[in-house]
Amino acid sequence: MEHTRIKELLNATEFGQEVIVKGWVRTFRNNQFIAINDGSSINNIQAVVDFENTDDALLKRITTGAAVRVKGTLIESLGKGQKVEVKVTELDVIGDSDPEKFPLQPKKHSLEFLREIAHLRFRTGTFNAIFKVRNALSFAVHRFFNERDFVYMHTPIITGSDAEGAGEMFRVTTLDLNNPPRTENGDIDFKEDFFGKSTNLTVSGQLEGELAALAFGNIYTFGPTFRAENSNTTRHLAEFWMIEPEMAFYELEDNMDLAEALLKYVIQYALETCPEEIEFLKNRLLEEEKNKPAADRSEMDLIEKLKFCLENEFERVKYTDAIEILKRSKPNQKKQFKYLIDEWGADLQSEHERYLVEKHFKKPVILTDYPREIKSFYMKQNEPDALGRNTVRAMDILFPGIGEMVGGSQREENLDKLLARMAEVGIPAEEMEWFLDTRRFGSVPHSGFGVGFERLVLFVTGMTNIRDVIPFPRTPKNAEF
Amino acid sequence: MEHTRIKELLNATEFGQEVIVKGWVRTFRNNQFIAINDGSSINNIQAVVDFENTDDALLKRITTGAAVRVKGTLIESLGKGQKVEVKVTELDVIGDSDPEKFPLQPKKHSLEFLREIAHLRFRTGTFNAIFKVRNALSFAVHRFFNERDFVYMHTPIITGSDAEGAGEMFRVTTLDLNNPPRTENGDIDFKEDFFGKSTNLTVSGQLEGELAALAFGNIYTFGPTFRAENSNTTRHLAEFWMIEPEMAFYELEDNMDLAEALLKYVIQYALETCPEEIEFLKNRLLEEEKNKPAADRSEMDLIEKLKFCLENEFERVKYTDAIEILKRSKPNQKKQFKYLIDEWGADLQSEHERYLVEKHFKKPVILTDYPREIKSFYMKQNEPDALGRNTVRAMDILFPGIGEMVGGSQREENLDKLLARMAEVGIPAEEMEWFLDTRRFGSVPHSGFGVGFERLVLFVTGMTNIRDVIPFPRTPKNAEF
Repeated sequence: MEHTRIKELLNATEFGQEVIVKGWVRTFRNNQFIAINDGSSINNIQAVVDFENTDDALLKRITTGAAVRVKGTLIESLGKGQKVEVKVTELDVIGDSDPEKFPLQPKKHSLEFLREIAHLRFRTGTFNAIFKVRNALSFAVHRFFNERDFVYMHTPIITGSDAEGAGEMFRVTTLDLNNPPRTENGDIDFKEDFFGKSTNLTVSGQLEGELAALAFGNIYTFGPTFRAENSNTTRHLAEFWMIEPEMAFYELEDNMDLAEALLKYVIQYALETCPEEIEFLKNRLLEEEKNKPAADRSEMDLIEKLKFCLENEFERVKYTDAIEILKRSKPNQKKQFKYLIDEWGADLQSEHERYLVEKHFKKPVILTDYPREIKSFYMKQNEPDALGRNTVRAMDILFPGIGEMVGGSQREENLDKLLARMAEVGIPAEEMEWFLDTRRFGSVPHSGFGVGFERLVLFVTGMTNIRDVIPFPRTPKNAEF
Repeated sequence: MEHTRIKELLNATEFGQEVIVKGWVRTFRNNQFIAINDGSSINNIQAVVDFENTDDALLKRITTGAAVRVKGTLIESLGKGQKVEVKVTELDVIGDSDPEKFPLQPKKHSLEFLREIAHLRFRTGTFNAIFKVRNALSFAVHRFFNERDFVYMHTPIITGSDAEGAGEMFRVTTLDLNNPPRTENGDIDFKEDFFGKSTNLTVSGQLEGELAALAFGNIYTFGPTFRAENSNTTRHLAEFWMIEPEMAFYELEDNMDLAEALLKYVIQYALETCPEEIEFLKNRLLEEEKNKPAADRSEMDLIEKLKFCLENEFERVKYTDAIEILKRSKPNQKKQFKYLIDEWGADLQSEHERYLVEKHFKKPVILTDYPREIKSFYMKQNEPDALGRNTVRAMDILFPGIGEMVGGSQREENLDKLLARMAEVGIPAEEMEWFLDTRRFGSVPHSGFGVGFERLVLFVTGMTNIRDVIPFPRTPKNAEF
């Protein structure tokens, strides 16, 4: 006889049927009530043991973390908080768990502690909920693009180009570090390396994505990207997943429409397919915020915040107008911003973004047309404005609490303008011939954007540390498991 | 007025409507017929220009590879090979393409040549079809697991463990190769590296997948993996994508059932959603095979081969029985195998696998219960057989033409047996404490398998070089784009 997954049993109504449950013991109370979880649901099923007719030695092995197989009758529960339970007729311990050593005792553990046992934290309700939501968001991303006939492209992880000029990249090598081959000049001889050149881990699939978009029309990537920044914050990972769609014949407005539609689609999907998980995470967050001073608590609970993004049309504002709003804002006038806004050209900080979203517009905001100097070389240049200021067709989507959720732009399709900008910022054209070919042979207006996937998961789960929304976080000095 | 994608127009029946097409010129014949492709379909739409009333200078710019915008009336085509065409009323060149320089002339190019311009080969019919099929297979993988409530886990790309003991890994580092920090002993000081230890690119997400399966029950990974093998063959990539499901409470039989169901599901999905692409690829393969001696041609065409895998129940055979079949086989008796099978314990070669699938059973074959010595340390050990031979609960799925499509096993859940095997093969337990915890705390029978995604795409597209089924292949001395 097959076992049934607990998620299914918890919704069952056919009482009296014989069932088999396999899972792990979360708690065992009064020598009688086993709370069993098999990972299919954040909720446990209760199995009631006839302890008087069960061997004592066996009962002693029903410890937290042990794996059990239970056969019994599914009955309506009279206890509070559960609709069904299993009246046990057969009980086996499949895998023991030494209660002295098992780190996950049935009590509240701090998130910090759980990060140290990332391989076991999946067995808690909180992390079950987080990774179920992450799973739902992943699937929703693929479904969204599939419904729109986008082609999923696997852009390369190992790259020979340093196109973003970011500098903060991880080297990939098979050279012997102890004694690397040298050229006659004494330099490291990367011709001897695996790929015959110096290679790194990608920071973005965008440039390769553009190549594909200019053949397939609409494509997207969804894969890992890497930054070797030595940032130990709650918002940085060295390895994270990114979603990057790229569309031929899309102007900036089409790009904004698509990004807004994507975010609403995946949030809606998570709400619909993970109601229990999100309810659980909402309550977790309310608990967490109780420890904060009232002024620091979020005005909206998690579900309200998600609906806030679904129900509002995102406000579209030009950078130049946003600067005026910020200049005249109370926190700027009263010098409450850490970085005061006094002139056009300033790079907006998180405090400014949050002011625009949470205080001024009270809805998600798409900021566009940023100063050229603070944005990437590949963004399409606008004509200078009446004051001669240069801007680019960039767009960032700002969300409550989290700040930038999406960064994108229309791309500069004009070869000469692109070459001139590359020269200005010092990107050697000869390393980018393949990229420039897209502007040589049938160049067309096109646009794209990137969504940091963990940031999206952070937003939808209401978690505050990005290390809690990726299974095995990689950060400076930390590559465990 | 918005443009319409060509795929949609090719299926349109509302003649007389005004349409806008945007795409790239594939051919321009008789100063009149433009074949336009926008990547949405492998098929072009024909636009018919009234050349007598069109500026000559504009007509000259209608070159292969140029991007055009065409406005006109959708009419029923009288020409052969197309149902609809566009009678042009407005014609613009969006992006020119110098015919002297554009590498993709309207003629047949070799696959080798196209690999050198991997950033432009997406614009050919063959590569349009290949990457559409790849896209369909990707989505089908996610849908298959989603329908079965599996959790998609992003296992880490950068890893501090060398668990497979493979050795052939890429190092990831931010150390200065010219002058790396040294310990007092003169060794490289990896404590100074970004992660505070020596790190590599993952060769498999399996071990981390096991951690997750023993919490969520059923999980899968689908992400890039890496091998630093210096193999320049048509079957090896240094960077490739792998699908790895891992299931708690699954015995080997359940594992085989799932793998067979997955392969059938995704092949069926590709046939249903990409009929034109697969028909195109079938014909491409028939053309290619015309150049081969008749004896080397495939007995089945591409579609027959795909249906062969759908319609046959996979044959399940124990290694020990397969050895007997091979020993007694004609090619072994007549010494036609390159590697003759004469004793139990031999590692099967591609020729043996193909004999079993294509000649003996004439259906896909699942080989199980391999000798322990030729398989990985983590596979569940059987009791020794009557002759005292040691086997493990491994299973490989063998496909026609391609050989091994899936490799999997039931995992050894017994801590003592696992530790003993690790000691035998020289894997230090102290580096694997996190992995061993799964066997310490609630260990359960569990199983999993891996599918090399490019091998799957190779099979479904009928291509023969793995470099043609990944957008930007990484192989020794080759990390372009």
